[in-house]
Amino acid sequence: MQGGPLDQLIKRLSSLPGLGNRSARRIALHLLNRKDTLMLPLAEDLQQAAEKIRECEQCGNLDMRDPCSLCSDARRDISQICVVAHVSDLWAIERTSSYKGLYHVLGGVLSALDGIGPEQLNLRPLESRAALPETQEIILALSATVDGQSTAHYVADRIAREGLRITHLAHGVPVGGELDYLDDGTIVTALKSRKVAG
Amino acid sequence: MQGGPLDQLIKRLSSLPGLGNRSARRIALHLLNRKDTLMLPLAEDLQQAAEKIRECEQCGNLDMRDPCSLCSDARRDISQICVVAHVSDLWAIERTSSYKGLYHVLGGVLSALDGIGPEQLNLRPLESRAALPETQEIILALSATVDGQSTAHYVADRIAREGLRITHLAHGVPVGGELDYLDDGTIVTALKSRKVAG
Repeated sequence: MQGGPLDQLIKRLSSLPGLGNRSARRIALHLLNRKDTLMLPLAEDLQQAAEKIRECEQCGNLDMRDPCSLCSDARRDISQICVVAHVSDLWAIERTSSYKGLYHVLGGVLSALDGIGPEQLNLRPLESRAALPETQEIILALSATVDGQSTAHYVADRIAREGLRITHLAHGVPVGGELDYLDDGTIVTALKSRKVAG
Repeated sequence: MQGGPLDQLIKRLSSLPGLGNRSARRIALHLLNRKDTLMLPLAEDLQQAAEKIRECEQCGNLDMRDPCSLCSDARRDISQICVVAHVSDLWAIERTSSYKGLYHVLGGVLSALDGIGPEQLNLRPLESRAALPETQEIILALSATVDGQSTAHYVADRIAREGLRITHLAHGVPVGGELDYLDDGTIVTALKSRKVAG
């Protein structure tokens, strides 16, 4: 309704994931009330990140360095590669600080609906990495959805070779999860994979 | 978890209203996957808007011009001034295309809790505008909250003079609202302000 740069800013903000027109307007006003402390620094952050952050050619992670700080960290266990769909999944696993191996970001999962075939995924570099003699285990950490699981099967087929362990994340009751609220599929899987107590 | 510009961008995004850590991470990844089509244009939009958009000295609206395009529009009725708390309220009224007078943006409402007194509001210019001979009506379009209504009373006291009509928005059942879901206060007000049918 103002025309010009404000309209354009609101339109651009509203195209971001999770934001609509109303939240974009709210954010634009918030920014305009804090031009020097938030709006211009944010513009600078965007430019800096766009310029400096790139994809690691080895694993597909986003970092300032290539190879990324995970691939080039000598303390990490190079015998394990954890395959994830998105960088956000890598971040989720890193936040747990429970995994010390390397990663490989596919950039998505196979999806007939979205027209994503094997060529659209970062698969060829994974094949080369899986074929390296130091690689002993590939952990397929893909979502427990139909697309995620069919991608896991496909990837497992492509990288299979003698002496390579291919594993996937355990399925079961989420920690803190109440049985009453769980879907049947999870309960069936958790029952089948039950473990001896103690 | 990446350190450097990406972390900083996510932190800055998560400080925007309505965004948390998770949505900021999601937006940052979305932007990094669209550097040239979205990320850099957004940085440019932010800079352009920060540079060009300013507050209208007369009414407090945000625009590229000062006085703003509403204040300088000769087709608008200068005998009416609609007083709103925020620019977003002005936009909301403008979207209805049902009001053709001028506006005055207070920049907030009186609030003892938030420490906002009369000095923090854009009140003095409103007094001058209300005192102009061409001003015949001041519409107090403030929220129907305690703070909004006490601000309306205070503003009405400050600008009162002979020959000046001071009005406020009608209270009642929202169009499309179901009685069953309305609070008691609204029903009482709507009953008291009932009108002859037809």
